[in-house]
Amino acid sequence: MSGNSIGVLFKVTTWGESHGPATGAVVEGCPPGINLTEGDIQKCLNRRRPGKVASSSPRQEDDTVKILSGTFQGKTTGTPISLIIENTNVDSSAYEDIKDIFRPGHGDFTYFKKYGLRDYRGGGRASGRETAARVAAGAVAQKIILRYGMEVVAYTKALGGVVIDQNKYAARTISHEDIAINQLLCPDASAARVMEEKLEEARRSGDSLGGIVEIIVRGCPPGLGEPVFDKMDADLAKALMSIGTVKGVEIGSGFKVAEMVGSQTNDPIIPDGFLSNHAGGILAGITTGQDIVLRVAAKPIPSIAKVQQTIDVHGNRMELSIKGRHDVSAIPRIIPVCEAMVTIVLADHLLRQKTI
Amino acid sequence: MSGNSIGVLFKVTTWGESHGPATGAVVEGCPPGINLTEGDIQKCLNRRRPGKVASSSPRQEDDTVKILSGTFQGKTTGTPISLIIENTNVDSSAYEDIKDIFRPGHGDFTYFKKYGLRDYRGGGRASGRETAARVAAGAVAQKIILRYGMEVVAYTKALGGVVIDQNKYAARTISHEDIAINQLLCPDASAARVMEEKLEEARRSGDSLGGIVEIIVRGCPPGLGEPVFDKMDADLAKALMSIGTVKGVEIGSGFKVAEMVGSQTNDPIIPDGFLSNHAGGILAGITTGQDIVLRVAAKPIPSIAKVQQTIDVHGNRMELSIKGRHDVSAIPRIIPVCEAMVTIVLADHLLRQKTI
Amino acid sequence: MSGNSIGVLFKVTTWGESHGPATGAVVEGCPPGINLTEGDIQKCLNRRRPGKVASSSPRQEDDTVKILSGTFQGKTTGTPISLIIENTNVDSSAYEDIKDIFRPGHGDFTYFKKYGLRDYRGGGRASGRETAARVAAGAVAQKIILRYGMEVVAYTKALGGVVIDQNKYAARTISHEDIAINQLLCPDASAARVMEEKLEEARRSGDSLGGIVEIIVRGCPPGLGEPVFDKMDADLAKALMSIGTVKGVEIGSGFKVAEMVGSQTNDPIIPDGFLSNHAGGILAGITTGQDIVLRVAAKPIPSIAKVQQTIDVHGNRMELSIKGRHDVSAIPRIIPVCEAMVTIVLADHLLRQKTI
Amino acid sequence: MSGNSIGVLFKVTTWGESHGPATGAVVEGCPPGINLTEGDIQKCLNRRRPGKVASSSPRQEDDTVKILSGTFQGKTTGTPISLIIENTNVDSSAYEDIKDIFRPGHGDFTYFKKYGLRDYRGGGRASGRETAARVAAGAVAQKIILRYGMEVVAYTKALGGVVIDQNKYAARTISHEDIAINQLLCPDASAARVMEEKLEEARRSGDSLGGIVEIIVRGCPPGLGEPVFDKMDADLAKALMSIGTVKGVEIGSGFKVAEMVGSQTNDPIIPDGFLSNHAGGILAGITTGQDIVLRVAAKPIPSIAKVQQTIDVHGNRMELSIKGRHDVSAIPRIIPVCEAMVTIVLADHLLRQKTI
Repeated sequence: MSGNSIGVLFKVTTWGESHGPATGAVVEGCPPGINLTEGDIQKCLNRRRPGKVASSSPRQEDDTVKILSGTFQGKTTGTPISLIIENTNVDSSAYEDIKDIFRPGHGDFTYFKKYGLRDYRGGGRASGRETAARVAAGAVAQKIILRYGMEVVAYTKALGGVVIDQNKYAARTISHEDIAINQLLCPDASAARVMEEKLEEARRSGDSLGGIVEIIVRGCPPGLGEPVFDKMDADLAKALMSIGTVKGVEIGSGFKVAEMVGSQTNDPIIPDGFLSNHAGGILAGITTGQDIVLRVAAKPIPSIAKVQQTIDVHGNRMELSIKGRHDVSAIPRIIPVCEAMVTIVLADHLLRQKTI
Repeated sequence: MSGNSIGVLFKVTTWGESHGPATGAVVEGCPPGINLTEGDIQKCLNRRRPGKVASSSPRQEDDTVKILSGTFQGKTTGTPISLIIENTNVDSSAYEDIKDIFRPGHGDFTYFKKYGLRDYRGGGRASGRETAARVAAGAVAQKIILRYGMEVVAYTKALGGVVIDQNKYAARTISHEDIAINQLLCPDASAARVMEEKLEEARRSGDSLGGIVEIIVRGCPPGLGEPVFDKMDADLAKALMSIGTVKGVEIGSGFKVAEMVGSQTNDPIIPDGFLSNHAGGILAGITTGQDIVLRVAAKPIPSIAKVQQTIDVHGNRMELSIKGRHDVSAIPRIIPVCEAMVTIVLADHLLRQKTI
Repeated sequence: MSGNSIGVLFKVTTWGESHGPATGAVVEGCPPGINLTEGDIQKCLNRRRPGKVASSSPRQEDDTVKILSGTFQGKTTGTPISLIIENTNVDSSAYEDIKDIFRPGHGDFTYFKKYGLRDYRGGGRASGRETAARVAAGAVAQKIILRYGMEVVAYTKALGGVVIDQNKYAARTISHEDIAINQLLCPDASAARVMEEKLEEARRSGDSLGGIVEIIVRGCPPGLGEPVFDKMDADLAKALMSIGTVKGVEIGSGFKVAEMVGSQTNDPIIPDGFLSNHAGGILAGITTGQDIVLRVAAKPIPSIAKVQQTIDVHGNRMELSIKGRHDVSAIPRIIPVCEAMVTIVLADHLLRQKTI
Repeated sequence: MSGNSIGVLFKVTTWGESHGPATGAVVEGCPPGINLTEGDIQKCLNRRRPGKVASSSPRQEDDTVKILSGTFQGKTTGTPISLIIENTNVDSSAYEDIKDIFRPGHGDFTYFKKYGLRDYRGGGRASGRETAARVAAGAVAQKIILRYGMEVVAYTKALGGVVIDQNKYAARTISHEDIAINQLLCPDASAARVMEEKLEEARRSGDSLGGIVEIIVRGCPPGLGEPVFDKMDADLAKALMSIGTVKGVEIGSGFKVAEMVGSQTNDPIIPDGFLSNHAGGILAGITTGQDIVLRVAAKPIPSIAKVQQTIDVHGNRMELSIKGRHDVSAIPRIIPVCEAMVTIVLADHLLRQKTI
């Protein structure tokens, strides 16, 4: 049973393989009468494009989006919005050599076990390319949350073991402008320089790097989230964990709560709000009205030039060194994807709360 | 829009408030012909009961489950299985005093903001009591995964800052017998003794403790999980994050991947399987056939005796010290709940894979 | 995969077998703050009880409903409403004789083929008894549609070939009072008398009768229904066809449109509304604001005393004459069930429209 | 909340407006390894094309389908299949004149009431053009049911009051070859000739005609259908009623059961099967293994040249005579759509039964 949709009222279904003719999304449930153009979506997609950082693949993806349905005269109509991004600059020949080989850390082995076959060209459906459709759909979701004065900002918190100075750069104050200062979308310029060095070093050694992205939601009204399973934090965790490279999700004080006591983690309430935000803006799965603060851990990109042990589809031992155009780190390209996923969940829950 | 169901093919819907007449679950999609008695479910529920550890509330909950439908002559029939657990030993009078007061760290404030009213008796729907229904449903799911030779074991990895000796007690070897040696379900007896002291100390000071639970799934076949949104890790993250006290979920090497390089995190493949398990048994959202390894961070119980700042429903400043029968830590009572949630997700995905 | 739920935002899940301990429903998505007592639901259930008409079984079912969750101090809280109706006056011994025999017209054969086993006591899950849970859930839905000034009235249009005088008794004028004049819930008193005679005659000959129920919805706002699959008429058709005895559903002019021309079926529009209602209140799957008019055909009750040819589970030829307490016609007991199903669909679509 | 998807395990989501750039479908849940080419789908689409009968619009639609994802090397991969049909030969200028006018019998009025705006070009989302996407998706579903030896045949049973000779042409014997003898897909050649005359007459008078389509499913295994709401007949009724022109659906003996007695409608069971098929192949919502027999009533096409009373969006009285290229009857073009909808439901339930 296919699992290509996310959201209940604001629902996104993505389709498409890395080296097929196109990838896309069908966005259902967007209310009518919202201004929406291809330019609005393109702007978000452009942020996902490979940049000039040492972490990025030299593959040039145009990622030009077209709206095929659901708008009329520049406005949404309430009918499903079909978005398509054609796959250009596709070269599958590089994959012919490894079409029978399972790449460690990739979905090759598991797709083969699941479906009995796989589209080996460039990762197929498991490719990071699928996230372009998520970002496009997120651009529609953004239109909805903007109506409520909400904003989602994600940025590089750590990369290759280098962490930003958290005293100077606190989640609650970081803006889109603050992170636009470098290609890594990192608010701490000096940390970013060290990260760039680490990336360069990893590239040279044929290896790749992991990191941490922090996501913050501002302006979220209290009351969003649906107990007891579709809690806001549960849905956010699912949405973020569904991104290929993510291996951990935490909210508010996250894993640190394991070493804290209740008198620390209970955020005191005063007439104006809360005195702290260890909860990360969510209590009992429902938003408090404070900022929502999340962090995800992104594993290093599995495509590395270093020689790895593996097997082929017949079970024979192989050695593999992956050539070709690959990012060295999922960061910063994963950042607009994280923003999109969080935005989609928020839009869905805003609509869900309207039925109360 | 209500969010009280989890699972698609194996679907669990829970209902019930802490101090209402009963709590329960409707379990849909269980295949017919499986032996299932109230005794099978009761055994799982008994593990969730308050024990004799210093962390537990002295409230005596009988938690006697009844099967109201879906079985005939001791076997499941394929129709929905309705499970009910009556609430006995309920005393709501203690909550009369705080019915207008928001308890910090609780869902009081957010339920009120969401619904415009709340059932203030003992936490209402946000109470840990709702997890009894999850555990009961998990007992049904367990019947399904047992058919495939699968096993789920969860245990205390850390509590109050005390961590088990991870060199001596590795996830892949810990059995249900290993953790039955103490009430904390902790495989490291000497760590457990220190944890007990910490709990006693916290109780005395009117405070509470957080901790970490590790969950391991053994015998899972490869191929489970539905890209691109209903990935196995995404669904597990949601299921676990939907437990009230959980603030973080990680899989395999989890947040550590942020500091690792690809040549470390890529688990090498050999004809017999994999040489390591940094992926935690899941690649591209699909199980590899290795053990699935997860960890969750549980925040300290928010009900503490220490004086806290808060407000009432009218916005007046208050000071609050919570009396009554409360656990000092969610651990170990959360452990069978974690097992139940993981088991429910696995049962659902086993059925989903049958449609491929 | 289980199909025991109906509705998306206002969602009803029923459970329970005819001769199990109880039957019930979990109602999700009901907004908070609505007055709801057991008495409100009981009133609807009482209408479904076997009456004194010749069509009814002498089985006395108390059908006492209890609310187990989802209300507090007489108001809904927004959490799932669990309703339970205990099965009293249950005598399964009568079914021991036919436990291996397939009753023609019943679900015995198909349940056995589907699940490999069946609960043979009194129809099990396929029993008309399951509809008690639908009626109880419908009582909750009624609270929602009442907020919008809507009303659903169903009545006997035909029974055993006797049809009401449609010139005198038109759908648009028939009220609950008009049909309360006899036990058959038939607005045409003289037709009802002939129907009663037909029922008595059928009972004497060991046979049973079919009929037609007409359902009318008044006060429905325009704009309800979700193209292109969850159209209002599509959802109504499903809801009504899911009632065991229903073999046909039609809307507005229904099957008569096959013989009409467009200049007849197109209802002319004037500033005040429409000049006719061949559409039955629905255009392109969306309500027009006119009355919604539906009809269903109910087949004769399959449990008859007349000797029938059948087989047992081993494939042996048998002759069967069904004894015991059975209705002679699904009418009038199906009437509150039809009302409940239509009301549930309307409540769901009212909530769905709130998200536009 | 959008309702553009049908099916649970085999799920079809359609998108697209009549005069937008394209229309399409995303098909989820199709098992991997099935041979599927654009040619397979095109063959089904071609059957829906306007033919040479008097009933058809002269609009030339190419309806060329492209597969954008979900297949690799001519086989399905298990990932979502994205199908696109570009809208060619589109001329919206004809609609400029009526952009503020509500056409009687159309969805203009209700879409406007629902969404507050509408895409007035050619019916927008409510256009019959959307059914091209259904037929394309049905072609994929057909691949699945063929694996089980199943076949769906639909044909013209009545048109403009002319009914086929039911004694000579019984549902259980009619084949695709039998109906390919004329453009109306009517097995009774002499009836078809009269129907053609009726169509010509209606066209001349600026009017349109309704009719009845009968659909038969052969080779269906017993056991399909999910009580108590997702019964096979309930899901079929919904799927068929979701077609724009359908105003009634009946199964087996349908509305005739209202005048029958139980000893007639109960199909006797013998070791080889059943002696009759009044049930239409479904008992208690589950297939019996007999042929499934359904009928739908299609209303006359609402676009007629005859002058009609209506209003514009400002509430002013208008007279309207619709010019342009329009079918005179939904028959025969609705026939492949009926087949597609039934096939989609069957494919979904085949997959659902695999989880038992």
